[in-house]
Amino acid sequence: MSIQTAVARLCKAYGDQIATSDAILSEHGQNESYFPETLPDAVAFPASTDDVSGMISICHEEGCPIVAWGTGTSLEGNALALRGGVSLDMSRMNRILSVHDEDMDAVVQPGVTREALNTHLRDTGLFFPVDPGANASLGGMAATRASGTTAVRYGTMRENVLALEVVLADGRVIRTGSRARKSASGYDLTKLFVGSEGTLGVITELTLRLQGQPEAISAAICRFDDIKGAVDTVIQTIQMGVPMARMEFVDEIMVKGFNLHSKAGLPEAPHLFLEFHGSDSAVAEQSALVAEIAAEHGGADFQWSTKPEDRNRLWAMRHNAHYAYKMLRPGCGVVSTDICVPISRLAEAVAATRAEIDRSSIQGMILGHVGDGNFHTGLLVEKGNDGELAAAKALALFMNDLALKLDGTVTGEHGVGQGKMAYMEAEHGAAWAVMGDLKRTLDPGNILNPGKVVRIN
Amino acid sequence: MSIQTAVARLCKAYGDQIATSDAILSEHGQNESYFPETLPDAVAFPASTDDVSGMISICHEEGCPIVAWGTGTSLEGNALALRGGVSLDMSRMNRILSVHDEDMDAVVQPGVTREALNTHLRDTGLFFPVDPGANASLGGMAATRASGTTAVRYGTMRENVLALEVVLADGRVIRTGSRARKSASGYDLTKLFVGSEGTLGVITELTLRLQGQPEAISAAICRFDDIKGAVDTVIQTIQMGVPMARMEFVDEIMVKGFNLHSKAGLPEAPHLFLEFHGSDSAVAEQSALVAEIAAEHGGADFQWSTKPEDRNRLWAMRHNAHYAYKMLRPGCGVVSTDICVPISRLAEAVAATRAEIDRSSIQGMILGHVGDGNFHTGLLVEKGNDGELAAAKALALFMNDLALKLDGTVTGEHGVGQGKMAYMEAEHGAAWAVMGDLKRTLDPGNILNPGKVVRIN
Repeated sequence: MSIQTAVARLCKAYGDQIATSDAILSEHGQNESYFPETLPDAVAFPASTDDVSGMISICHEEGCPIVAWGTGTSLEGNALALRGGVSLDMSRMNRILSVHDEDMDAVVQPGVTREALNTHLRDTGLFFPVDPGANASLGGMAATRASGTTAVRYGTMRENVLALEVVLADGRVIRTGSRARKSASGYDLTKLFVGSEGTLGVITELTLRLQGQPEAISAAICRFDDIKGAVDTVIQTIQMGVPMARMEFVDEIMVKGFNLHSKAGLPEAPHLFLEFHGSDSAVAEQSALVAEIAAEHGGADFQWSTKPEDRNRLWAMRHNAHYAYKMLRPGCGVVSTDICVPISRLAEAVAATRAEIDRSSIQGMILGHVGDGNFHTGLLVEKGNDGELAAAKALALFMNDLALKLDGTVTGEHGVGQGKMAYMEAEHGAAWAVMGDLKRTLDPGNILNPGKVVRIN
Repeated sequence: MSIQTAVARLCKAYGDQIATSDAILSEHGQNESYFPETLPDAVAFPASTDDVSGMISICHEEGCPIVAWGTGTSLEGNALALRGGVSLDMSRMNRILSVHDEDMDAVVQPGVTREALNTHLRDTGLFFPVDPGANASLGGMAATRASGTTAVRYGTMRENVLALEVVLADGRVIRTGSRARKSASGYDLTKLFVGSEGTLGVITELTLRLQGQPEAISAAICRFDDIKGAVDTVIQTIQMGVPMARMEFVDEIMVKGFNLHSKAGLPEAPHLFLEFHGSDSAVAEQSALVAEIAAEHGGADFQWSTKPEDRNRLWAMRHNAHYAYKMLRPGCGVVSTDICVPISRLAEAVAATRAEIDRSSIQGMILGHVGDGNFHTGLLVEKGNDGELAAAKALALFMNDLALKLDGTVTGEHGVGQGKMAYMEAEHGAAWAVMGDLKRTLDPGNILNPGKVVRIN
């Protein structure tokens, strides 16, 4: 019983669906944040649920770790094979199985990316709203309970996954949920697997809720003198029940990056980027209302547009934040972390974070999905500079403490991965032990993404 | 180790918080549907989380069943103490602990009813939207994953419970979730307890999401020649993304009941009852659009009003459906059951159900939260008439089969209780065994509402 035996058995059973070349191992050992390269022993490429079940069964028998892999875009080292074993690359399971226009749902394999699904849906009048920025796989997005810019209106993966097919640690295949919009029939297993980061089972099929493309979309941008004015605008807008589709904050440092990267020509000050979805008149009415709220809080240069080209330019800029930001200090990496707090504590949380970054030795920007009380910092760290990395990690820990002090959570959307493990007990107390009990029940051998979310051995 | 010893110990420890009088036992042995009286051995009235923990600990040590009880308004015998033991009446834990206006949430004890919460919120500009009809306790609503007329817009208890305090089977107290709007921090235990019907833990505190009172509300009513026209109107409205606040179907039999009970003076034909929330202009725009859609599908007499008195009259009538319906055949009880299907299958499901009722020996009406694909039948059964009760049960089973055949679920909102147990395996397959594993992990002695949701001994 060993990793080596498991890999040998997998190679025998699955031939060229198993890779052990340095290049492929290395590709599955990388991450988008600051975690060191962590190589698996092999990468498996299942093409079907049967493959996943068979591969997991072998790992189960051999006690070999197996970690599902989507596109590798998670930010907390969520999909790294910490204890070696098999990286289960879901990219070949990339078929859109069905779209039910009338029911506004789609059934997809986990390797389908969100952009591929939306391209497929283009002519249906429907779209899939969850948008974490990266063109992540939908299986990975479900596994990490991803959200992003549109969650304030359409919810996160928690609200948008209706049903799942999941392979359990012993190879059994189960189906959770149904295409019905609601159910009171038994325990909500779907929601248990969403956000479990591959530690309780591997998702092999998802039924996703779709949305109708709005009749009209307008985007707006507004400058503020200070963070507080922007955040107070957000709070008042949400409280007035304006159904915002996007409500993004960027600070002045991030704006510098946009100016460098996208020649945005924006004043270097905090901004809100906004989007409204609805009928022509609703969009106009909402934009006018939010412009008024912004003006009360020192907002200036409120510009809105219903032209697709203006809107696309705005969100392309926002989605390139990571790369834009790196241009501020060439040769650096970005340590990214996120927290989420009740919206009444948002101004305080952002200000305290800004002050702590300013006290540190490194440069950092703040941006966030502030309509949800969720924000991120990006911390610029010179590659190989241990002192700067330590300062960045200390800032991330500061933010975790802050989130818990303010009734929040240590991660709004990046997931636990490796970066948040140390805070799970502080956040969940005795409930963390219950999570461990559930893990032990569903994966007694601890083969599924071991070392993540819970600590059971 | 026995029920008797547990009750004796509870009486000693909690004095007059424990009742064993016939009247109180009988009150906690009743239900709103067709299940026979099922008496507990004692009723406990905890006043605090500590009480709940202490009472459950005694039951844990003695292997005594303990079943949480809210207001007794569930419809599938969910809270009946099938194996005797203790009925844990949460009605004294009825304090609203805090309301966070800015964050639009409230923290309440489980015995607070939804109407009590909304009365408390009256002057805040906020309201709690989930409305199952009955003035149920919020703890009971969470435990059964309740929904109702407004779920099409605001979601069910699944979407509206942010955090919980729960006492586990061994008396441990845990907290799940937080007041943050979203989180990617670990397994979603909140959603695991919501809908678990008291079989995994007892809810002792809830943090609920609130909504802003809309600027304008309009209600509308529209008559149709047949069920299909009404249902097709619903489908098209949902697909066009109209943010309906309520979208209720009633058939011609139910309308007869309304005419008798509320002197409604409605034509005896299928109707939709609608409600719109938004700004003045949005509500007017939406009403006009839906009137147009309805007209395309044979809708007539579309009447809408923004007058509160018209609206209150409409929904009071709707909420009294149960009593109105009973007037059609005095001395009868109502067997109530519900299913939920993808909306594309709704017309077919309603028509098949109508036909099956017409083939049966009993009278039945159909009404439903059709915006979600969820509908109910109310079947009139003479008290003590076993033949009619058998016919009603057969109809309920027919509907379960139908729901599963149409990709739906055997209960959209009533919960599993006793009426849906026989269909859990058919609906969930191997996932039902996983539910059993989770139950065994969290309640190895099977003391929490034994015999419900899962079968483990």
